[in-house]
Amino acid sequence: MLGTDLASKRKRKRSDYGYHLDYRTRWSDNDMYGHMNNSVYSFLIDSIANGYLIQQCGLEPTKSSEIGLVVSSYCDYFGSIAYPAVVDLGLRVVKLGKTSVLYEVGFFEKDKEEVKAVGGFVHVFVGKEGMRPGSAGMSARVREGLERLVEDESASGKAKL
Amino acid sequence: MLGTDLASKRKRKRSDYGYHLDYRTRWSDNDMYGHMNNSVYSFLIDSIANGYLIQQCGLEPTKSSEIGLVVSSYCDYFGSIAYPAVVDLGLRVVKLGKTSVLYEVGFFEKDKEEVKAVGGFVHVFVGKEGMRPGSAGMSARVREGLERLVEDESASGKAKL
Amino acid sequence: MLGTDLASKRKRKRSDYGYHLDYRTRWSDNDMYGHMNNSVYSFLIDSIANGYLIQQCGLEPTKSSEIGLVVSSYCDYFGSIAYPAVVDLGLRVVKLGKTSVLYEVGFFEKDKEEVKAVGGFVHVFVGKEGMRPGSAGMSARVREGLERLVEDESASGKAKL
Amino acid sequence: MLGTDLASKRKRKRSDYGYHLDYRTRWSDNDMYGHMNNSVYSFLIDSIANGYLIQQCGLEPTKSSEIGLVVSSYCDYFGSIAYPAVVDLGLRVVKLGKTSVLYEVGFFEKDKEEVKAVGGFVHVFVGKEGMRPGSAGMSARVREGLERLVEDESASGKAKL
Repeated sequence: MLGTDLASKRKRKRSDYGYHLDYRTRWSDNDMYGHMNNSVYSFLIDSIANGYLIQQCGLEPTKSSEIGLVVSSYCDYFGSIAYPAVVDLGLRVVKLGKTSVLYEVGFFEKDKEEVKAVGGFVHVFVGKEGMRPGSAGMSARVREGLERLVEDESASGKAKL
Repeated sequence: MLGTDLASKRKRKRSDYGYHLDYRTRWSDNDMYGHMNNSVYSFLIDSIANGYLIQQCGLEPTKSSEIGLVVSSYCDYFGSIAYPAVVDLGLRVVKLGKTSVLYEVGFFEKDKEEVKAVGGFVHVFVGKEGMRPGSAGMSARVREGLERLVEDESASGKAKL
Repeated sequence: MLGTDLASKRKRKRSDYGYHLDYRTRWSDNDMYGHMNNSVYSFLIDSIANGYLIQQCGLEPTKSSEIGLVVSSYCDYFGSIAYPAVVDLGLRVVKLGKTSVLYEVGFFEKDKEEVKAVGGFVHVFVGKEGMRPGSAGMSARVREGLERLVEDESASGKAKL
Repeated sequence: MLGTDLASKRKRKRSDYGYHLDYRTRWSDNDMYGHMNNSVYSFLIDSIANGYLIQQCGLEPTKSSEIGLVVSSYCDYFGSIAYPAVVDLGLRVVKLGKTSVLYEVGFFEKDKEEVKAVGGFVHVFVGKEGMRPGSAGMSARVREGLERLVEDESASGKAKL
């Protein structure tokens, strides 16, 4: 099972993640030091997680009655990436609760093996009105989509969460 | 020959451009209205033009002795694009002078024909020290790369510019 | 009367603008060349114009039935600004039509006289449903707010537009 | 002494921080949900920390021989902020080591008491050549500047670190 400690994160491989998208970096992603600004990693983490919710779980940000609120986020950086590289992102679900989910995203550079960064965040699903978690938790379609990204479903699946 | 008037721009096709890159949009690209913020187009225009200079013309932003200063920029918007779409960008050179170049970038959405926006900017190449155009103009390698993107080389080629 | 040609723009003063806001620059605004990326100017132009609409004209982006669509934008750059500077922005209205407005924004650096850049864009006000200009044009409150920023009301005021 | 646990962070006050800057939010900071995108907090955390290093500790990003590498970052969100608000940021140093520093930044909205978010990151100071920590640690001027932001100098001052 994949750990969440730093030593474990440094060893992440593409195959540890169930969903992948590549993002071409942009000129403005590099900062004065000529590397991708650490804050840009947050934008990309947001993008793959919400992209999965929209394209694989039927979420429509401007229409759905539920929204995912970010309550905490983090990123650990092991190596640098620089524009104009293309970044391969992998997404998995570390913990899936009744109303919340902890995502993890791995950053890889095209044609390179080693992981450059590992970050993620916690989404709490709330009703758009009231901004509070519903008693029913997240919608069935979102839950099913997120379950598919839980690393080891037998170990961390529905029954336990 | 491709015009630079608005009516002409509305008819742009992918084949009007000599260099193409696709960019996956990001969550943060959409604004409160649920469409890609008009300012993000500038970031993408910057990205394909500098990407061409770096990957096809040998420019190294942190090392080369010349840099391209942006002296003016513009964009005309004909339709909207929204995250999580993938954007196809096309780049061409409208005017190539001794020390300056006017780029044009067309925005297309993957699997759609009509152009969504056309924008561009003027780069003046200057020495990193002093920030003034050199008497020799831009470097030979940059010039050759840019010439390859001039729409109709017989009409707007070396001799005239 | 203020012209819209380049020579005229280079002479802009703070007093040419009727509405002012200062924006502290951010680390990520600087690009690899150590100056504020030209695309960031677009973000700031957007920010002061929409800020005026929200704070002085009662526009509520997520609730109002009208929205301002950006149909074209431009910027001319005369000098550079770099993080961590504070930028003074000035906003004026160059043209006010029945459903559209052309804004101009001047960029000044705190404690310096000369204008660093002049840019702007055209907003067409449309109904949120249908995304088409209404026969009534923009709302009365937005129109009154924008009229206050028209440079010379006697010359370009209500009667003519 | 200020804790680093979540319950403690929720109680942060402006007076817990030794250095303050206010940042006007931008149109593009809001996402489709009409609130400041969580990733934008990272940009602001970067901006106040580097702003302190540049304006109070003599760091010159494009010239200094040392640079601060971000090795990890985090943010906890307690409430939302939305453009066009002005954000008051507070900066303190939680841990100061020989070559590294852990910053904490508190987010407050102008004229409101409660803290909206608390985030931070770890900087490791390395030589620009080689990108490795020097045996001498960070420069004396940077160290002195950072020591001034350590919460309780008697408890966590030079001798212990």
